[in-house]
Amino acid sequence: MHTIATIPGDGIGQEVMPAAIDVLEAIDAEFEFVEGEAGEHVNDREGTPLPERTRELARDADATLFGAAGDLAADIILPLRGEVGSFANVRPARAYPGVDAVAPETDLTFVRENTQGVYAGIEADVTADTKTLTRVVTREASRKILEYGFEYAREHDAERVTVAHKANVMRKTDGLFVEVAEEVAAEYGMAYDEALIDALAMHLVARPEEYDVIITPNLAGDVLSDLAAGLVGGLGLLPSANVGDDNALFEPVHGSAPDIAGQGIANPTAMILSASMLLEHLGYDEQADDVESAVLDTLEEGPRTADLGGDASTEAFTEAVVDRL
Amino acid sequence: MHTIATIPGDGIGQEVMPAAIDVLEAIDAEFEFVEGEAGEHVNDREGTPLPERTRELARDADATLFGAAGDLAADIILPLRGEVGSFANVRPARAYPGVDAVAPETDLTFVRENTQGVYAGIEADVTADTKTLTRVVTREASRKILEYGFEYAREHDAERVTVAHKANVMRKTDGLFVEVAEEVAAEYGMAYDEALIDALAMHLVARPEEYDVIITPNLAGDVLSDLAAGLVGGLGLLPSANVGDDNALFEPVHGSAPDIAGQGIANPTAMILSASMLLEHLGYDEQADDVESAVLDTLEEGPRTADLGGDASTEAFTEAVVDRL
Ligand SMILES: CC(C)[C@H](C(=O)O)[C@@H](O)C(=O)O
Ligand SMILES: CC(C)[C@H](C(=O)O)[C@@H](O)C(=O)O
Repeated sequence: MHTIATIPGDGIGQEVMPAAIDVLEAIDAEFEFVEGEAGEHVNDREGTPLPERTRELARDADATLFGAAGDLAADIILPLRGEVGSFANVRPARAYPGVDAVAPETDLTFVRENTQGVYAGIEADVTADTKTLTRVVTREASRKILEYGFEYAREHDAERVTVAHKANVMRKTDGLFVEVAEEVAAEYGMAYDEALIDALAMHLVARPEEYDVIITPNLAGDVLSDLAAGLVGGLGLLPSANVGDDNALFEPVHGSAPDIAGQGIANPTAMILSASMLLEHLGYDEQADDVESAVLDTLEEGPRTADLGGDASTEAFTEAVVDRL
Repeated sequence: MHTIATIPGDGIGQEVMPAAIDVLEAIDAEFEFVEGEAGEHVNDREGTPLPERTRELARDADATLFGAAGDLAADIILPLRGEVGSFANVRPARAYPGVDAVAPETDLTFVRENTQGVYAGIEADVTADTKTLTRVVTREASRKILEYGFEYAREHDAERVTVAHKANVMRKTDGLFVEVAEEVAAEYGMAYDEALIDALAMHLVARPEEYDVIITPNLAGDVLSDLAAGLVGGLGLLPSANVGDDNALFEPVHGSAPDIAGQGIANPTAMILSASMLLEHLGYDEQADDVESAVLDTLEEGPRTADLGGDASTEAFTEAVVDRL
């Protein structure tokens, strides 16, 4: 039996987490759920949005589900990613049936480096008027994400692998990333192409259907995956995985949505699909597929939540998903 | 009389530059044109794509028109921006009449910081396997671009000013940028909003019509402005300005397009609109408007170049623009 830490977090995180748990309880697999606190309410009370006991929970669990965060997101999600040793942030972006999309043919996955780049967090006050940030790129971390990305592409029969970078400006740092990409691709015997992140931003908007798996440095992946979310109709529906060597964290790409929090109307799709990614990660491939299909069918046939023009509650949508399992 | 340095560069740069010169010669203003060499052919011959004599030309001119660059773009355009003391890269992105756009309501302008951030170019080989890049943000450069951006917004009656950043991760560096934005906005007595660059990428795809002037750090502006180019139908039509205190450089956002170079079929719109930005910069406001209108009318009524489904040559398109002046 696997232990799953559940950390609802802020706002609608509190509402979509129960949806994911309902779904995981409805399938043919047994989990122990342990709930951890994080978020603004915890910060108000304890002076930190992510207490040590919650970190420990995530560290000790077989996998973690995280709900949503608001203004303190960086203080919660970045350390949590650290606790599970996440080196790969996996973000599928595809247009869902029944959902208005800018680019309905979009179906791609970002494999984003998740430990370094500008997120290494090394900043200095050189003077009161001059600040620096040290962007770090190592061969080891580059190799790790690139191997993961090519492996992911192989397992998912990707039609194309794209390695994103800005090595024409960040010559040494992204240069190293590009150099390792070439090595790893050769070891895997797989074709790939390189794309400058600026040109890629344009191409993704103009012809997203041409892309499949995109391996990116940390910040580029942050921006480009949100761009892709815009293409498929917003962050609302997209799940993500933060994958470590022997632990992982799954979370919707959306935030805490304070404007609709507490009303029981949030769309739990992203959270439930994150649970589906968790299932795949733990080896429950069949169940993962079942959950995904149940969500897609519900999106197509209804009932719909308010964000998609319906009036189903979070619970009603979730029930409809569970009924399809 | 103003002196304009013209540097055609590579590929279609050689074909679109004459178009811009034809247009500038057709209007009511007198210029002296001096041509400078840059590009791959120069690199092959002289071991540098941007010889000192070309740098000097740009330095000494009242303004420079640059055509296009290919793989060596970074070695040409970054130093050229340096020669003219460019601190602001201004990139309007709007959907043009008669041009297929992903988001036809797009009409916004990026004001991109152009001297620092990751472009400060300070990289180190800490070890063979660890590279670093120092991202620099100073109060002075931040103030300069923010003042320019708010001034630009005021002069252009912008409906909204957005300051882009990633201060939740780059706390000190982008934190300084955000702090200065607040000060400058207060001095101008202007409203503005802040946007995290990842969320902004999503919103720009989903609702570009909500934005007007967007002030960004250097790399974020690079990526987001290309994203916007994708929204309006590609880089092909977009002009840009690199503005210094007493000099400036104007260039299409597109590259050298080796696939169509040499055939005389390139669309010179971006180059001619860059010339229109040059006219505005030098104080020829009326002429700038005339050129812009002539280009827009030609785009709408034809003749069209191949990229827009027509079969007009670069010259025929240019003639049609000149005829409208
Ligand atoms: C909250 C923030 C620190 C985070 C990031 O930048 O990684 C978020 O944007 C994300 O992509 O999950
Ligand atoms: C060629 C490259 C160095 C340049 C940049 O990154 O600024 C280009 O992408 C641009 O935006 O003009």
